[in-house]
Amino acid sequence: MNEKIKVGIVGYGNVGKGVHKAVIEAEDFELVGIFSRREISSLHNEIDNTPFLPYNSIYDYEGKIDVMLMCGGSANDLGEQCPYVNKKFNTVDTYDTHAKIPEYFSMVESSAKESGKLSIISVGWDPGLFSMLRLLSQSVLPNGNDYTFWGKGVSQGHSNAVRRIDGVKDAIQYTIPIEEAIEKVRNGENPKLTARQKHLRECFVVLKEGADAKKVEEEIKTMPNYFADYDTTVHFISEEELKEKHSKMMHGGFVLRSGNTGDNKHLIEYSLKLDSNPEFTASVMVAYARACYRLNKEGLTGAKTVFDVPISYLTNKDYMDIISNVL
Amino acid sequence: MNEKIKVGIVGYGNVGKGVHKAVIEAEDFELVGIFSRREISSLHNEIDNTPFLPYNSIYDYEGKIDVMLMCGGSANDLGEQCPYVNKKFNTVDTYDTHAKIPEYFSMVESSAKESGKLSIISVGWDPGLFSMLRLLSQSVLPNGNDYTFWGKGVSQGHSNAVRRIDGVKDAIQYTIPIEEAIEKVRNGENPKLTARQKHLRECFVVLKEGADAKKVEEEIKTMPNYFADYDTTVHFISEEELKEKHSKMMHGGFVLRSGNTGDNKHLIEYSLKLDSNPEFTASVMVAYARACYRLNKEGLTGAKTVFDVPISYLTNKDYMDIISNVL
Repeated sequence: MNEKIKVGIVGYGNVGKGVHKAVIEAEDFELVGIFSRREISSLHNEIDNTPFLPYNSIYDYEGKIDVMLMCGGSANDLGEQCPYVNKKFNTVDTYDTHAKIPEYFSMVESSAKESGKLSIISVGWDPGLFSMLRLLSQSVLPNGNDYTFWGKGVSQGHSNAVRRIDGVKDAIQYTIPIEEAIEKVRNGENPKLTARQKHLRECFVVLKEGADAKKVEEEIKTMPNYFADYDTTVHFISEEELKEKHSKMMHGGFVLRSGNTGDNKHLIEYSLKLDSNPEFTASVMVAYARACYRLNKEGLTGAKTVFDVPISYLTNKDYMDIISNVL
Repeated sequence: MNEKIKVGIVGYGNVGKGVHKAVIEAEDFELVGIFSRREISSLHNEIDNTPFLPYNSIYDYEGKIDVMLMCGGSANDLGEQCPYVNKKFNTVDTYDTHAKIPEYFSMVESSAKESGKLSIISVGWDPGLFSMLRLLSQSVLPNGNDYTFWGKGVSQGHSNAVRRIDGVKDAIQYTIPIEEAIEKVRNGENPKLTARQKHLRECFVVLKEGADAKKVEEEIKTMPNYFADYDTTVHFISEEELKEKHSKMMHGGFVLRSGNTGDNKHLIEYSLKLDSNPEFTASVMVAYARACYRLNKEGLTGAKTVFDVPISYLTNKDYMDIISNVL
């Protein structure tokens, strides 16, 4: 057996916990520690004996950890953490603020190039697997159109937007792809679709005592960027019902490409149906941590994405075995 | 503009014609010639002015062609041609005799390693894209089961098997995936499926004059390996109807992986619906010819597969452009 890939987890939210579960199932990995900026005594490891370690001690593990799985958020954590951590370690992250990816890429690239480490950024399912499928489909079917639909699934950004409204105690928002729109794409109609024609939004809201339901509903439905361009349904429910029926972080979606070669039409469709968005994202990250370790060992450095990683680097199976049994 | 990738086509059947059409649409390619073992005067170029050239003159083009697109068949052509052609040129082929892939790989590998060329083998959709999706899905969701369904589509192997029966003038065979089986997989039931439970076989047969329909039908349905393990329907039709309704080489299929992380279930589904199997296969080959050229320029040699090629090598788009717009 080869030496195990030694990894650390940075950040212990839902994705961090998912990585924790996934990495201890993967026999070619060894989990060294979980780094957090929170008070270490406030953290509880319900899974195994892996130690929690203070984030500011991370450089002490230089040479003892091969890849850091960066599980912080894009909004506040990764921009600061990744270029700090990749001065000493290879990293894999899930940076997903689409508009800022080029800027983030450049920042991560320059610090990784300097340290000789490899940072695979924006790993997960979108960005991540969906991005790969978009580029793969465009490349093998150049004459065509791409469509991405998300859901049915929980959007944290939209749920948070509803929670910020005055009178709202808690809320959850589902993004729902419109089946008729997907069918038009499948039929090769190459439709031009507005935001409203692609997705519905459905909110489950718990009100604070004395809050005005009508006013809250109106405020949700007219909220610019988040809801105004969509058909939105709002349901008011009890706190118990929210907890009981809406605490699974399900998600998924569809990437389609419809195109042609001469007179012949072709359709490529990829879809995910996920009970747990953070656990699936974590499982994808672990496969890319394996690739990150190997590619850096071969001399690859800097910032890279799912576009740069050959699929064979994601598995710990023997190459001739996959040639015989998977090809 | 960079220099164009100079390619040749070897073999001018359905896939070769598809490559011809696809490659002249791709602005980063230049098609130098089409090599064939047939009498050159018997070949007709209905598309452009690319010359037909005798197969045995192929070494004369050393240094003038970067990648040869090998469009011969797996049964009789590629085993002989690929290790001959890759002594002087990079190659991309569609070798698809699954059981003999390891042996073919080794043979192609040793001649390419010696010449310093790169041969990407078994490119297309299965083997090819479906193989990639199987390995990708296994890697990101290690705890689960894979399922591949083919069709609805024309199987050349099964059509030929029917054509060889005494009394059959012409025939076409469709492989049809069984929708209930796919639904069981989608529902996460992880079914164990026999050949009969996965696919139906449907034959359209033109009889020779005086042939015994009953006997032909019986012979088809009981044919070992090809039909005996399946539920098969046989329709007798006229030659005109066969030509009119069954001359499109449609195909497609589904790759599914159903698995879980802890208590949470996940489903990954990839599907293709193709009006023309050879034209889509050809379109995939052209994308991999681009990768083949670039990877060999970077020093990669030997036999490789879709598992070894990063997606970014398949496109002629600028890297920062795909980071901004596709990731």
